[in-house]
Amino acid sequence: MMVDRLYLYDTTLRDGQQTQGISFSTAEKLRIAAALDALGVDYIEGGWPGANPTDSAFFEEVGPTRATLTAFGMTKRAGRSAENDDVLAAVLNAGTQAVCLVGKTHDYHVTAALGIELAENVANIRASVAHIVAQGREALFDAEHFFDGWKANPDYAFECLKAAFDAGARWIVLCDTNGGTLPLEIHGIVKEVIARGIPGDRLGIHTHNDTENAVGGTLAAVDAGVRQVQGTLNGLGERCGNANLTSLIPTLLLKEPYASLYDIGVSREALEGLTPVSRMLDEVLNRVPMRQAPYVGSSAFAHKAGLHASAILKDPSTYEHIEPGAVGNRRVIPMSNQAGQSNLRRRLAEAGLEVEKGDPALARILERIKQRESEGYVYDTAQASFELLARDELGRMPEFFEVKRYRVTIERRKNKYDRMVSLSEAVVVVKVDGVKKLSVSESLDNAGADRGPVNALAKALAKDLGPYQSVIDDMRLVDFKVRITQGGTEAVTRVIIDSQDGRGRRWQTVGVSANIVDASFEALLDAVRWKLIRDCGEAV
Amino acid sequence: MMVDRLYLYDTTLRDGQQTQGISFSTAEKLRIAAALDALGVDYIEGGWPGANPTDSAFFEEVGPTRATLTAFGMTKRAGRSAENDDVLAAVLNAGTQAVCLVGKTHDYHVTAALGIELAENVANIRASVAHIVAQGREALFDAEHFFDGWKANPDYAFECLKAAFDAGARWIVLCDTNGGTLPLEIHGIVKEVIARGIPGDRLGIHTHNDTENAVGGTLAAVDAGVRQVQGTLNGLGERCGNANLTSLIPTLLLKEPYASLYDIGVSREALEGLTPVSRMLDEVLNRVPMRQAPYVGSSAFAHKAGLHASAILKDPSTYEHIEPGAVGNRRVIPMSNQAGQSNLRRRLAEAGLEVEKGDPALARILERIKQRESEGYVYDTAQASFELLARDELGRMPEFFEVKRYRVTIERRKNKYDRMVSLSEAVVVVKVDGVKKLSVSESLDNAGADRGPVNALAKALAKDLGPYQSVIDDMRLVDFKVRITQGGTEAVTRVIIDSQDGRGRRWQTVGVSANIVDASFEALLDAVRWKLIRDCGEAV
Repeated sequence: MMVDRLYLYDTTLRDGQQTQGISFSTAEKLRIAAALDALGVDYIEGGWPGANPTDSAFFEEVGPTRATLTAFGMTKRAGRSAENDDVLAAVLNAGTQAVCLVGKTHDYHVTAALGIELAENVANIRASVAHIVAQGREALFDAEHFFDGWKANPDYAFECLKAAFDAGARWIVLCDTNGGTLPLEIHGIVKEVIARGIPGDRLGIHTHNDTENAVGGTLAAVDAGVRQVQGTLNGLGERCGNANLTSLIPTLLLKEPYASLYDIGVSREALEGLTPVSRMLDEVLNRVPMRQAPYVGSSAFAHKAGLHASAILKDPSTYEHIEPGAVGNRRVIPMSNQAGQSNLRRRLAEAGLEVEKGDPALARILERIKQRESEGYVYDTAQASFELLARDELGRMPEFFEVKRYRVTIERRKNKYDRMVSLSEAVVVVKVDGVKKLSVSESLDNAGADRGPVNALAKALAKDLGPYQSVIDDMRLVDFKVRITQGGTEAVTRVIIDSQDGRGRRWQTVGVSANIVDASFEALLDAVRWKLIRDCGEAV
Repeated sequence: MMVDRLYLYDTTLRDGQQTQGISFSTAEKLRIAAALDALGVDYIEGGWPGANPTDSAFFEEVGPTRATLTAFGMTKRAGRSAENDDVLAAVLNAGTQAVCLVGKTHDYHVTAALGIELAENVANIRASVAHIVAQGREALFDAEHFFDGWKANPDYAFECLKAAFDAGARWIVLCDTNGGTLPLEIHGIVKEVIARGIPGDRLGIHTHNDTENAVGGTLAAVDAGVRQVQGTLNGLGERCGNANLTSLIPTLLLKEPYASLYDIGVSREALEGLTPVSRMLDEVLNRVPMRQAPYVGSSAFAHKAGLHASAILKDPSTYEHIEPGAVGNRRVIPMSNQAGQSNLRRRLAEAGLEVEKGDPALARILERIKQRESEGYVYDTAQASFELLARDELGRMPEFFEVKRYRVTIERRKNKYDRMVSLSEAVVVVKVDGVKKLSVSESLDNAGADRGPVNALAKALAKDLGPYQSVIDDMRLVDFKVRITQGGTEAVTRVIIDSQDGRGRRWQTVGVSANIVDASFEALLDAVRWKLIRDCGEAV
């Protein structure tokens, strides 16, 4: 069988940034680009250099990538040459191997939105693409509103594509900009475009999810012959989002007929990183990962129905269309049944706690987790807090020290230069081996900047733990996440803290309270206790 | 043109309840059923009477509906007659006009999961359906794992369907139980089923979203000839959910070729209730509505890109595939670092600030927004903070009062009962009309529970603003969101606050700082200032 190469073009950093409420920092863009590159997409569209300072900074700072780095821009404006268009020049100045230019192909948009003659738009497309090609770059042409344009005036829409194609564009990308074209129509129109003379291996597809068909429309275009697929991680994007690569990649790699017909740049091994990449993106965005997300959601392989769960125990293939591990996800069988306890024992073993099958503590631990989760705690990621909870229930949690009280003061006032400045101060009182210790810290960092009350509290807590102090000296707080969530009927604050030590260990802890400082303190305390267990052992 | 009747079958109350973390009360089921009935679906599947006490109660309590109320169950078990199967009897006892029975059609499942002979399973299907029909009920047969079954053994899978059909089932529903069958395959297999002799107007489709193709697979089945569509509101359901009726209904009613080819029971007028129904369901489930949801999400008609926003101002059809009001939703034009001046003027006009085209303040406002966004602020939802920033730049921001300083103290200690308790106290010092005012508040609510430092600070700030106090007395903080983000090179805290007043106005403000209390204070201050502008005017 002939296997065709199918190319993946990621636009998370450009169209994905059009998601309402999202704006990436340069550092976040670099982190996402690195993850995309490791996953194995063919093109990474980094943004629109010149239009946006973070996009420009991204192209300056990004290092070499395996994927083809692509800058986005638009075709030259009317009334000037491609050489003299400063917007286009800024795009080229980013120095990327490939450049993707969006241009209009719908006659109504040309006259109504651009206000120029139809022929002039075609000439602009031709000149812009030729200019990119003349600079030795790979040129892509994003045909904006192509499907609506085709329905209104197929000859004109095709003329626009043909101008880009003849000018040397490597890819002509058919964009359903408004997201309103249904898969059946996409399939038919792509067939006609190919019949008119632009071969499928020069065509790409770019869909939006306004009818919940972005993935279906993309597959319909592939079925009809296109060989480049555009999309975003987690389906980010303007309005309802773009085609979701997180769903498309596993479908193309694992499912028939696609698995046999096409070769994509993502390996089976890299695919196992898909769920972590999806979760990382949500973490960057501080979004709650969508539980029902295909392939990568925490519910994607959760079997709630009793009949399903019991069949799954006999043969997972009965209710799973793929093996969850293939995409780095895992099967979930509700804690309430037998399988719940075996899951728990596996997690405890991972934490070095061997517990006999049938130990009554298992049921107590499950019960306590359920109770805590109803209060707003989460233990999926906060493995260290999970371990401490289990140890407590198993009678294997040494006390080390006792917190008697703490106090944090946050002040903001004008300084002598009449500028508002703020400062926090924390006092923590603990009892270690019967000895009371008072510690005080303030929130200023070495540069004199205020790092806030949690920072002051963390420093005060870790300042004097007597005999244990040397053990925690190499600990530091590396990440801090806050979310308002539901705890029973009240809104509460959930804090998740990532800590790291000198040996490179990294662990997560959770705290929940109506009071954000209190929630933070709880998570900090768990972080310190987990570290003491690791380095001092249980038998203190 | 011939218009076919296409039937909608809702299973929110049965398959939708398989969503992880969801269990409806009887009252909730009744409320959802009423909404579905008003919307105009043809069938409401209420649950499995006998298998689940809330389902049994639902059928007892539900009143007459326009839709055909349907009870769900399974085909009779082996070794007893349909008349003597107590599980089946419980389903019939619910007294519904229609009964839907699920049965196996995949040979492997018959032998591996049921452990019976293939022929016996066929006989069970036939006898069960005949029994329903003999009771004068409308019978539906859910062919479980049909597509996987067909791929494994098409003759056997079809034999199962045929048994139900010959026994008098009104509908044979082809179920893609594992959600792994892609639209192209569904289309092909449905065509073959029809070619073998079961007409499309006796066939239904039931898909799951495991590859993000539940909607696409459903449309592919309709294209191939089926005339009943099963799904759930908001795509609830086992694992990744069922086909989303909230997306399918507007597509079938408004979009071609479906709008011209089919008649569905939902009217254009009822469709305007779609967004409210979707939000009501999220409210029942206490879920945050998905912003990017097709048709009904709050971002579904949000135009962030500058180019899009300026075209939308000329003609909404340029970037919208349907008119938002048709589904009860509305258009949103948010601010962002990519928005152009026309978008900005439009936003200012919405805030009552008319600014001439070309006013140099426009460029300064955009510049300042860009600068603020690079520090971690976001203005696409925080419209009130956006307005204050713009007013400041336009010289239209009265000062009202000046904050001189504040101090918050958070303490946690053991009380006299040896329980840890926490308490925050805030002092705010402001100057109003030359008069210094000191206010102090603590964080306890009326029930004596600690609501945290931000609560104390909000109360102290709103305690004594002298002549303005009466204006802000009806303000309250209704939502509070926190995220850690990047501000320049440092991690900072962004707080977004929702406020509401006695007139039902609701507004959002933003604050950013390394110090979470400080970020909150900034957002609180903006909230108060916005309210004063609204109710005292500019000319103070």
